[in-house]
Amino acid sequence: MKLSTKHLLGIKDLNRDDIALILSTAKQFKEVLQRPVKKVPSLRDVTIVNLFYENSTRTRMSFELAEKRLSADTLNFTASSSSAAKGETLLDTVNNILSMKVDMVVMRHSASGAPHFLAKHIPAAIVNAGDGINEHPTQALLDAFSMQERTGRLEGLKVAIIGDIMHSRVALSNMYLLQKMGAEVMVAGPPTLIPKYIQEAMGVRVEYDVKKALQWCDVANVLRIQLERQNQPLFSSLREYNLAYGIKRSLLDSLGKEIVIMHPGPINRGVELDSDVADGPHSIVLNQVENGVAVRMAVLYLLANRENQQ
Amino acid sequence: MKLSTKHLLGIKDLNRDDIALILSTAKQFKEVLQRPVKKVPSLRDVTIVNLFYENSTRTRMSFELAEKRLSADTLNFTASSSSAAKGETLLDTVNNILSMKVDMVVMRHSASGAPHFLAKHIPAAIVNAGDGINEHPTQALLDAFSMQERTGRLEGLKVAIIGDIMHSRVALSNMYLLQKMGAEVMVAGPPTLIPKYIQEAMGVRVEYDVKKALQWCDVANVLRIQLERQNQPLFSSLREYNLAYGIKRSLLDSLGKEIVIMHPGPINRGVELDSDVADGPHSIVLNQVENGVAVRMAVLYLLANRENQQ
Amino acid sequence: MKLSTKHLLGIKDLNRDDIALILSTAKQFKEVLQRPVKKVPSLRDVTIVNLFYENSTRTRMSFELAEKRLSADTLNFTASSSSAAKGETLLDTVNNILSMKVDMVVMRHSASGAPHFLAKHIPAAIVNAGDGINEHPTQALLDAFSMQERTGRLEGLKVAIIGDIMHSRVALSNMYLLQKMGAEVMVAGPPTLIPKYIQEAMGVRVEYDVKKALQWCDVANVLRIQLERQNQPLFSSLREYNLAYGIKRSLLDSLGKEIVIMHPGPINRGVELDSDVADGPHSIVLNQVENGVAVRMAVLYLLANRENQQ
Repeated sequence: MKLSTKHLLGIKDLNRDDIALILSTAKQFKEVLQRPVKKVPSLRDVTIVNLFYENSTRTRMSFELAEKRLSADTLNFTASSSSAAKGETLLDTVNNILSMKVDMVVMRHSASGAPHFLAKHIPAAIVNAGDGINEHPTQALLDAFSMQERTGRLEGLKVAIIGDIMHSRVALSNMYLLQKMGAEVMVAGPPTLIPKYIQEAMGVRVEYDVKKALQWCDVANVLRIQLERQNQPLFSSLREYNLAYGIKRSLLDSLGKEIVIMHPGPINRGVELDSDVADGPHSIVLNQVENGVAVRMAVLYLLANRENQQ
Repeated sequence: MKLSTKHLLGIKDLNRDDIALILSTAKQFKEVLQRPVKKVPSLRDVTIVNLFYENSTRTRMSFELAEKRLSADTLNFTASSSSAAKGETLLDTVNNILSMKVDMVVMRHSASGAPHFLAKHIPAAIVNAGDGINEHPTQALLDAFSMQERTGRLEGLKVAIIGDIMHSRVALSNMYLLQKMGAEVMVAGPPTLIPKYIQEAMGVRVEYDVKKALQWCDVANVLRIQLERQNQPLFSSLREYNLAYGIKRSLLDSLGKEIVIMHPGPINRGVELDSDVADGPHSIVLNQVENGVAVRMAVLYLLANRENQQ
Repeated sequence: MKLSTKHLLGIKDLNRDDIALILSTAKQFKEVLQRPVKKVPSLRDVTIVNLFYENSTRTRMSFELAEKRLSADTLNFTASSSSAAKGETLLDTVNNILSMKVDMVVMRHSASGAPHFLAKHIPAAIVNAGDGINEHPTQALLDAFSMQERTGRLEGLKVAIIGDIMHSRVALSNMYLLQKMGAEVMVAGPPTLIPKYIQEAMGVRVEYDVKKALQWCDVANVLRIQLERQNQPLFSSLREYNLAYGIKRSLLDSLGKEIVIMHPGPINRGVELDSDVADGPHSIVLNQVENGVAVRMAVLYLLANRENQQ
């Protein structure tokens, strides 16, 4: 079995078999991570650069750990300590790095499409770790892995994605993946954060009442409100957002049914999730983080392996 | 033999046997570090995160080297490139990191008590690498190791801690350790930097005349003046501080006896230590740095080993 | 065979045999880097610190990869996260690091002569990764390696160094190396960027007309215009610079002969090199980057090996 694609640029480009292969491979790596010896020699002679043009604690660390567990050699490049400040183009920077015999590039960039542009010009495999407001494919894969692990399925699963749909690469990658795998998807949140074209373009349900969304779904994937975008406010205050769209324990208790709560992190406690929800029995947020390492190991392993088979 | 505590939060929590065990283990690791092959496989399957919310060259490097000499996998996290900027709580950040199967946390934080707070909420072992103005336990351990190495004993040793006692976590950790091990402790420096409660609370001697302190002691542990605190000056100038409290070669020569000079670094040359003292025969400041790696290896090794025995 | 020098401070201090030894050793390491397994155990028990007081993507990464390919342990130290901010002297910082049993220091510093100063005071081997406007010896070595690889020789080769000669450590190191190896050297560019003493001191040709320089040379090593120095402009605009001194494809085509174009990077496209030149058949800029890892492996290997033979 091998992936149909040389890169992981977005879930949009994957087919159902690709996704199933990544999830089943991740399951094997998750078993490895339960053992005392968590390292495998799979990528011993592979060098990977983590090229982060945006800050990210958990994503960079998760990739770095995945690489180390696979015995790869890693190099970290962050924009602040880089030639970017000297005006070098992205393509020149990456071509330079690849000339040093680097095999794979994990990249995060604030510009949507940056990894797709690179993929047209360089020979190495690229893993998109988040590009602007476009995609964050490994997040969607770890979300799907976590949903399947908790509920036993993706086919027919009802998933509500709640919050700032408009600016969220997590939302877009989740929508692509869940629909490919046969789940039903709803987006919910303030009308100002749910663009009109989403319903038609993606074929998802739209709901502006969070309680109704929760009544409908099996799993709620609650997005982070980007506080840093609040200089151009889309709702009047965080307090107001919490009252109208935040997930509270009392709201969950009133549903009279089981529901799974997910969040890609970092959580704004008291805004999109109250603390008794984030830390409560419905929440699988830390499972998501744990699964992230296994999913990223699977992606890196499958892409590196595909290279070898060419 | 194992430590009585799961974490190293402060010297305050250690008993005399713990301290003796760490010092004797460090002695073995120091022997390893003299060999051409300085690496041991002791922590081969242990992953350690260095979580530094304050800058520190020597402490972070010393821990990182200790981890590498023990064959541990290491991850570095610094606050400037982190989710801290996105408003995530310390506990969420650490829980996320631990979910990625990280075994130990070495942390430095500007808030006194930050590692103690974490220790109540997370399962992993925590090593305090400095918390606010509270404790810096590995510094006190390496200081004790260096004193014992140079003078042959801690019991009955007369140690003067000189300088900014009030703001110094090094001073506090040293006082706890030295008293537990039977040394006699004096604090010396300007009255504005020696809080009144210290004498009673810690049972130490207080001396405002540095020459008298040096006449009394076997070892002088001279603290760094925190230049960055000088916007709210506690003495009128660095020049004045040097004249009244700085250690000069002529002063040492006038004592008519042997004395050991220590400093945790970085040294302000010409302020708390003149250069001919810092680089002279009394000084063991570079021995302290060398011993720091062995002491940190001992702490990490003993804590990891304790985990395995549970 | 061993180097005549304990450090690599500058090309000025190397003799012809040293340079030939480094280049031939680099050729062997370049063969290693073509293999699937690119790692050799040569420096397995050597610890190297990369001490960068100036930002640099490609040089730091190139050294770090060279160290990892040689199986050395590496530590990274950058000035922004360092004790430098706390006012510690360079010598104290380095002595502290060396006390932790670090074997070699790779350093970049904005002050010309910083590594030479250190070399007088510390026992470890130092590799200069660029000091102010003085030297950048590994760049000159990789440039020479790349010239020799492409043209088959250094002896008698005609090399024009084009651009900001006055501020360039790359230019100075190249001039030293090329003359020691019997190449003929010309410097070319705007008169404001070619100091009068260069011609006499270095015995090089000077040419202010770039076309004439290209007609003369076999290899043109085109330097980067330091945009960051443009607050004190030495020519009226980048556009003007490009028109008068930039290398264009049409200019190369008009020469009626083969020529090799080099650049130390990062390139200002459309300023000193047009894109169709940088990416065209004359250019070996990515070969230079690739060769940089092999050359740095050779330097580190030979210096470490020399230590062992003492």
